[in-house]
Amino acid sequence: MQPISTESRRPRRERAVRKAVSVSPAGLEGGQYRPLREADVLRIHLAALQVLERTGVEVMESECRTIFAAAGARVDAGLNRVYLPAAMVEHALKIANHDVVLHSRDGRSDLHLRDKRVHLGTGGAAVHVLDLESGALRESHLRDLFDIGRMVEQLENIHFYLRPVVARDVPNDDLDLNTFYACAAATTKHIMGGCYYPQKVAEVFRLGALLAGSAEQFAARPFFSFNLGYMVSPLRFAVETVETLTAAVRIGMPVALVSAPQAGATGPATLAGTLVQVLAEELAGITYVQLLRPGHPLLMGGMPLVTDLRTGSMIGGCAELALMNAAAAQLAHHYSLPIYNSCGITESKLPDVQAGFEKGLTSAVTALAGAQYNHHAAGMLESLLTVAYENYVIDDDINAQVMRLVRGIEVTEETLALDTIHEVCTDGPGHYLGHPDTIARMNSEFQYPHTAHRGSRRDWEEAGALDMRERARITARSLLQTSWPQTITAEQDAQVRAEFNILLPRAVMAPGSA
Amino acid sequence: MQPISTESRRPRRERAVRKAVSVSPAGLEGGQYRPLREADVLRIHLAALQVLERTGVEVMESECRTIFAAAGARVDAGLNRVYLPAAMVEHALKIANHDVVLHSRDGRSDLHLRDKRVHLGTGGAAVHVLDLESGALRESHLRDLFDIGRMVEQLENIHFYLRPVVARDVPNDDLDLNTFYACAAATTKHIMGGCYYPQKVAEVFRLGALLAGSAEQFAARPFFSFNLGYMVSPLRFAVETVETLTAAVRIGMPVALVSAPQAGATGPATLAGTLVQVLAEELAGITYVQLLRPGHPLLMGGMPLVTDLRTGSMIGGCAELALMNAAAAQLAHHYSLPIYNSCGITESKLPDVQAGFEKGLTSAVTALAGAQYNHHAAGMLESLLTVAYENYVIDDDINAQVMRLVRGIEVTEETLALDTIHEVCTDGPGHYLGHPDTIARMNSEFQYPHTAHRGSRRDWEEAGALDMRERARITARSLLQTSWPQTITAEQDAQVRAEFNILLPRAVMAPGSA
Repeated sequence: MQPISTESRRPRRERAVRKAVSVSPAGLEGGQYRPLREADVLRIHLAALQVLERTGVEVMESECRTIFAAAGARVDAGLNRVYLPAAMVEHALKIANHDVVLHSRDGRSDLHLRDKRVHLGTGGAAVHVLDLESGALRESHLRDLFDIGRMVEQLENIHFYLRPVVARDVPNDDLDLNTFYACAAATTKHIMGGCYYPQKVAEVFRLGALLAGSAEQFAARPFFSFNLGYMVSPLRFAVETVETLTAAVRIGMPVALVSAPQAGATGPATLAGTLVQVLAEELAGITYVQLLRPGHPLLMGGMPLVTDLRTGSMIGGCAELALMNAAAAQLAHHYSLPIYNSCGITESKLPDVQAGFEKGLTSAVTALAGAQYNHHAAGMLESLLTVAYENYVIDDDINAQVMRLVRGIEVTEETLALDTIHEVCTDGPGHYLGHPDTIARMNSEFQYPHTAHRGSRRDWEEAGALDMRERARITARSLLQTSWPQTITAEQDAQVRAEFNILLPRAVMAPGSA
Repeated sequence: MQPISTESRRPRRERAVRKAVSVSPAGLEGGQYRPLREADVLRIHLAALQVLERTGVEVMESECRTIFAAAGARVDAGLNRVYLPAAMVEHALKIANHDVVLHSRDGRSDLHLRDKRVHLGTGGAAVHVLDLESGALRESHLRDLFDIGRMVEQLENIHFYLRPVVARDVPNDDLDLNTFYACAAATTKHIMGGCYYPQKVAEVFRLGALLAGSAEQFAARPFFSFNLGYMVSPLRFAVETVETLTAAVRIGMPVALVSAPQAGATGPATLAGTLVQVLAEELAGITYVQLLRPGHPLLMGGMPLVTDLRTGSMIGGCAELALMNAAAAQLAHHYSLPIYNSCGITESKLPDVQAGFEKGLTSAVTALAGAQYNHHAAGMLESLLTVAYENYVIDDDINAQVMRLVRGIEVTEETLALDTIHEVCTDGPGHYLGHPDTIARMNSEFQYPHTAHRGSRRDWEEAGALDMRERARITARSLLQTSWPQTITAEQDAQVRAEFNILLPRAVMAPGSA
C-alpha cells in the first residue's frame, strides 16, 4: 500500500516506481510446500478418471449433453448421466491453455498464471458489510463494490478484484452489468465476476469493448472474466450456468470453472475423497470447454470446502480446507493449469484474533503450495457472508507477509555474506547495524507492514493503544477519502450510460467533476 | 483441550482416553514444506564450515578454550579466537545424539524429537503479564509460572512447558530452582528453563532427583532441560553461560544450544547470511558438547530473528523469521538433529487480528517444515516481552490447526472413497450427510476448535457477541478455577522444602489440602 497522500490524485509515475521496488511482488513462484507425495498426485488423478468413467456426471438433456455425446461420451438418458472415457479427458488436458493471462485494464497488473506464480485477491459474493463508521452489520450495496474497489486499487498486495459483495440494491436484471461497471470504475486491476443469466454474457463483453475501445481490443486483452458455478456437487452439471459458460467460452471471455464440494456434505468426509470428487468435477468441466473451444483461457476452479459435522455448517478457516486447496494446487501443477483457489476465509464475525490466525494460516499454506489465483484472500468474514472495509487493509498486510514467504530465501555468493561476516567479526564493530551491506538490503530483503504495529509499547500507547482493527479502520477511511482513481473517462461513461441502465451515479464516481 | 469440568479433580483415565483419540497428536511428521533447495542446504553447510575455519569463534581464555585446543582447534590467543577445522565439526555431527527424547514426568507426553516430528510449546522469559481480570500490564511473578503451567497441563496442543516468564518477585539466587519447582508443581509435561549460574545446575538436578525418586531415575529420564544462550552473536562464546553449559552436560541434563542472531543487527542483513552465521554458531556449540561428552542429548538452538531496520527493533512475527526458522529446521534435518525453533511470536501488544495472523503464519510454516521443538508457540505478545493468560487458550486452538496441517492428507484405497462417491451419486441421496462413512470419519478426520467460533451470527450474538479474546478469557478463568494438577505429593514437597528455599506456598499448590 502507498502511504496516504493528502492530495486526491497522485501522479501515475509515483505508483509505478513504488511497484518497481516492491519487496514481494505479485507472481512470485510458490510450490515449496507440497502436501501430497508425487505418487498420491497420480493416484488421485487416476481415481478421478475412474469416477468419470464409472460414476459419470449428471447432465440433463441439453446442448451440453449433445456436445458430449457427439464427442464420444457414453450417455445414459434414463439416469441423465454422461460417462467420460479417460482418453477424452487426457486429450482435453493436453490441448487446454497452459499459459493463461488475466489482463488488467492498463497492462500494469496482468496476472500471468502459468507455472506456480502466486496471486492473491478478493473474493466473495458476500451479502453483508460491517459498516466502516458504525461497525454495524448492513446489507451490501452497489456503492460498496465501488468503494471497496477504490481501496483495492491502492492496496498493492491485493492483486485482482473479484467482486466481493452482491449489490442487493440492484434488480437481478441489471446486476451483472452494474457489478462489472462499479468495479471497473474503481480499479484497473483484473476484474472477475459472476454472470447469472446466459443472455448477459454479451452485455458484459460489450461493456468491456466500450472500455477497451473496441471489441477486438477487448478480445485481445479481456480485463473481465467470469467465475461460474457450473457444477452442483456431487457431480451434477448446473444446466443454466452451463449455458452461461457456453456463451462465455464462445464469446472469448476467460472463465473459472467453480466447483466447491464441502467435505462431509456435498463431498466425501475424507479429504482425499473430496479431492477425487472435485478433480473429477473439474476434469468434466475442462473437457467440456475444450470441446467447445480448444485452448480457451480457463482456470480450474476446484475449491474444496469443509463441513463442521457437529453442526453441518460450511467452514473455510481451517487446516483441512488449507490442505485440500494446497493439494488441489498441486494437482493443477500436474496438468500445468492455473487454479482458482481459496484462502483467507474465516468463521469469525469480526476482525479479531480468530480472523487473523485463520487467514494467516490458510493464506500462507495455499500460497506456498503455488496456487496461482487465490481469491477470498482479502476482506472476508463470517464464512463468506460478510466483508469489512478495514479487513482489506489488514489482509493487504497479511498478503504482503505471505508473498514474502513465497519469495523465499535467495542463496547466492553475495547473500551468503562470508566476507561481511568475517569483516564484522574480526575487524569491525561486532554488529551489522549501519554496515553498507545492511543499508543496501534494508529496502529489498524485508517486507515492512503498513498497519501491523511494530513499535514499542510506549509508542503504541502514545498513539492511543489501538488494536490493528482500529488502526485499519483509520487507514480505510483515509483511503476512501483520498482515492478517486478516475479509471473511466467522462466520454466512456456517457457511452456506457447511453447503452445500459447504469445505476452508480456519475457524481459518485468522480465527485470533483460534476 | 478438555471441556471444562465442574469437578476440580478429573480422573487420570479420562485424560488418557481423550489423548488416545486426538485428531492431531504431538509428534506428527512435518517436512512437506522445504524453503531451501537441497543444493542450497549443502551450500549453507559448507559456508558455515568455512566461517568456522576462517573467521572462527571468539572464546576468551577458559576451560572451554583449553578443551578446543586440546582437540586440535587452532587458537589465536591475541585475538581470542578459536578456529575449527571442518573435519572436527563433521566428526562431531557424526557422533552427536540423533535420537533425543525430552521426557515428561509421567511418561505420557514424552517428546521424541527424531526425524521431523513436530512439537509445539511455550517459550519465553517474558517480564510482563496482561492480567487476566483487568487486562492491565503488570510484572510477571512466580505465581504466574504455576498458573500458566496449570493451564498448559490441560491444553493438549501445547506439548511442553518452557518457562514462559521471569519470576520477578524472586531473588536471582533463588530463581532457577524456584522456576523449575513452580513449573513442576503445575504440569507433568517436559519442563525447560534457564540456569543463570553454573553452580545452580546441580541444584536443579537434585530437585529432579527428589521428584523422580532418585538421581538414577532422573538421569535415566530427565524431565527438566536447559536452554542456554551460550553464544553472543556474532560468533562469540558467552564465557559464564558456557560454564553452565559445561556443568549441565557433565551432569547429564539435556540442553538446547541457543544462538539467536538478528538479521541486520547481530547477523548479516540477508536471510542466507544470517543462516550461515547461526549455523556456524551452532556447529561450534555442537562440537564443544561432543568434546565434553559424545552423544549428549542436545537440541540445535539456532533461532534466527529479524531486525526492523527502520527502527532497530527485534521482530518475530514476520515472514522473514518464519523462512529462516523453517530453513534452520531443514539444516537440522540434514544432520538428523532436533532443533529448538521458534514460532508464534507477535509484535502486537494484545491478542488482536495482528497477533492472530502473525502466529498463524509463522507457526504453520515452521511446523510444516518439520521443526521438532517449536517454542514461543503459545502465549507470547509484544516481541516476547509480555504474555497473556487468554493467549494460551487461543494458541492451543491455533496449534491444533497447525498440527492438523502437519498431519496432512491420507491417501488410501479407503480414503479415496470411490465406492462411496458412486453410491451417493447413483443410488443415494445425492449428498454425504449422515452416510455411515461420514459418521465414521467425523471425529477422526476433522480438528474442531474449542474457542474459535464456528456457529451462526445468531448463535454468536445470543452468546454475547464476544470476540475470540473475550471467549478465551472466560475459558482461561475456568481452567484456573478448576484445574489443580497435584503433580507433587505432600511428601515430595516437604522433602524439597527441607533442602531448598521454596517460595511458592504449599497452600497455593494444593488449596484443598491445607
